[in-house]
Amino acid sequence: MGVLAKKMGAVAVVMWVAFICCHAAEAGRRQLRFDGKRGEFRILQVADMHYADGKRTPCEDVFPQQMASCSDLNTTAFIRRVILAEKPDLIVFTGDNIFGFDATDAASSMDAAFAPAVSSNIPWAAVLGNHDQESTLSREGVMKHIVSMKNTLSQLNPPEAHVIDGYGNYNLEVHGVEGSSLANKSALNLYFLDSGDYSTVPSIPGYGWIKPSQQLWFERTSSNLRRAYVNKPEPQKGPAPALTFFHIPLPEFASFDSSNFTGVKQEGISSASVNSGFFTTMVAAGDVKAVFTGHDHLNDFCGELTGIHLCYAGGFGYHAYGKAGWSRRARMVVASLEKTEKGSWGTVKSIKNMETS
Amino acid sequence: MGVLAKKMGAVAVVMWVAFICCHAAEAGRRQLRFDGKRGEFRILQVADMHYADGKRTPCEDVFPQQMASCSDLNTTAFIRRVILAEKPDLIVFTGDNIFGFDATDAASSMDAAFAPAVSSNIPWAAVLGNHDQESTLSREGVMKHIVSMKNTLSQLNPPEAHVIDGYGNYNLEVHGVEGSSLANKSALNLYFLDSGDYSTVPSIPGYGWIKPSQQLWFERTSSNLRRAYVNKPEPQKGPAPALTFFHIPLPEFASFDSSNFTGVKQEGISSASVNSGFFTTMVAAGDVKAVFTGHDHLNDFCGELTGIHLCYAGGFGYHAYGKAGWSRRARMVVASLEKTEKGSWGTVKSIKNMETS
Repeated sequence: MGVLAKKMGAVAVVMWVAFICCHAAEAGRRQLRFDGKRGEFRILQVADMHYADGKRTPCEDVFPQQMASCSDLNTTAFIRRVILAEKPDLIVFTGDNIFGFDATDAASSMDAAFAPAVSSNIPWAAVLGNHDQESTLSREGVMKHIVSMKNTLSQLNPPEAHVIDGYGNYNLEVHGVEGSSLANKSALNLYFLDSGDYSTVPSIPGYGWIKPSQQLWFERTSSNLRRAYVNKPEPQKGPAPALTFFHIPLPEFASFDSSNFTGVKQEGISSASVNSGFFTTMVAAGDVKAVFTGHDHLNDFCGELTGIHLCYAGGFGYHAYGKAGWSRRARMVVASLEKTEKGSWGTVKSIKNMETS
Repeated sequence: MGVLAKKMGAVAVVMWVAFICCHAAEAGRRQLRFDGKRGEFRILQVADMHYADGKRTPCEDVFPQQMASCSDLNTTAFIRRVILAEKPDLIVFTGDNIFGFDATDAASSMDAAFAPAVSSNIPWAAVLGNHDQESTLSREGVMKHIVSMKNTLSQLNPPEAHVIDGYGNYNLEVHGVEGSSLANKSALNLYFLDSGDYSTVPSIPGYGWIKPSQQLWFERTSSNLRRAYVNKPEPQKGPAPALTFFHIPLPEFASFDSSNFTGVKQEGISSASVNSGFFTTMVAAGDVKAVFTGHDHLNDFCGELTGIHLCYAGGFGYHAYGKAGWSRRARMVVASLEKTEKGSWGTVKSIKNMETS
């Protein structure tokens, strides 16, 4: 899939395809933190599990000879295998976690879908897609159920935002290595947003979008995080790098052709039919280095626009449309710290990401 | 310039070129209100006066033989003449009111620029362009000076928004006819926003844009106004129609070709180089029928997109670039009420607008 390397301020973002596997995740921790051995923080992005009723739910788009033995349980087995292979420090589910139309009971489907993450004892976070609310729970109900689950760092919404659109808008801080100068600072920021489901505006067809209230929350959160990072103790020169996770790609994902993306593009960009400005808001904030979405299962590419890498994960679930012979897949994002002159760990040196299947 | 008529819900928006002149404005009133004789509310939009030092400031782009006797005073004479001819109920100045680079003293330039509005005793409102702050006052200083002037309804910023980008974001209500059932309701809503001056983001070149904080304020204000309009007393079926005024056109102004706009397009659309989503936010709010901007002096067209008319005023000031032989001009917007069965005045039936020069 080629190699793309780009210097973005002090942070090099590199995309490649390979496995680099590493340290064990600390079980059950609440404060995310870079690992002290390799100076890494590893994120597994799982997009579009489309989980429904487990063994009773058949696979889609696999070879005919695979159909008889293929169900949601293959999705479960796949996530278990990827977790073991990649040993992430955080698992992020970017929506369509369940496929509501085929899920008899939303809570049961979610319990089954997230079970491998829960039982791994690795912290996990989720946002909503456009199918999660199509079973027995509303979007609010789905997100509340997720928040109540074990080992998750998901949040319903930020407590400081009095009014915000959607459910599942929150941020997580990844602190520096324990005992290093950045131990009590966020060296990597993660934003999670609800990109909605469908437009409710009669004159606007198609999918939902990220609203002004969410963008304002993001903008203020980013500004507060920058202030904390550049202030004492251990004042830094610029903002800490940040990554953003949500379900529906932005219209800007359609900016690329084969000359300027890395990965596979096998279908169109199913963004909202309107531009709600979130890409502009992220560029203006200045900290976001990459955006990770799902939604279009046959796309797994990354492209860079105005300093921000726009990345698809590719479809993960076996009860989701896909392509027989084109493996279900996930994205690994690995942020690495630089070694300081004193031999300790410093700030983020690079963020690399790759497909895994 | 042709005729364009379109039904938008209960409100017909028609653009035409002609003078329809009418009733006298009530002097000094603070609550804007439809006129009881004709059931009309008349708005004069003045864009890009580019006022500087009065008599000492020469005209631009007039015929050579006009140069010797032409100065900012021609702009003053023009606005006096248009006010007398059009008898507006409100005068709206959509930015670049002064051309800061050539204005020795910002306050004096503003006093001179707005003098015809002040002395007319007609209420007036102003927003900022990208040149207003280039003299001796900051954008905040310019807006504060405007707010302190006589007969203006301009506001520095909405008191209910704790944090908002820019200066001069506010709304005005136009109530129904005195003594009619809508006397104490806003039958027409006017939004004024600061579209900024220049990008301060290194990776984004060009002009400023309307930020999430401003869009959220707009969204909430629109929602509150809708609630008041559809609630008792005199509950209405949908939101009252609304008009939005700011300086820099949206990227969506570039959506038109000669087949779908009315008026003149003689230069490109100098919007921000990014889309900040305000058009989407307005469509979603559902009340805005038309947007009125300035900035590109040689464009005076209106085009309709997703139910919203996007209109330029055309350049007004003589110390602004223009085109010799193509008159300086302004836009008149006339909202008309329908007659109820009982012979009283009801809700807005149509909003018409036209160029005047």
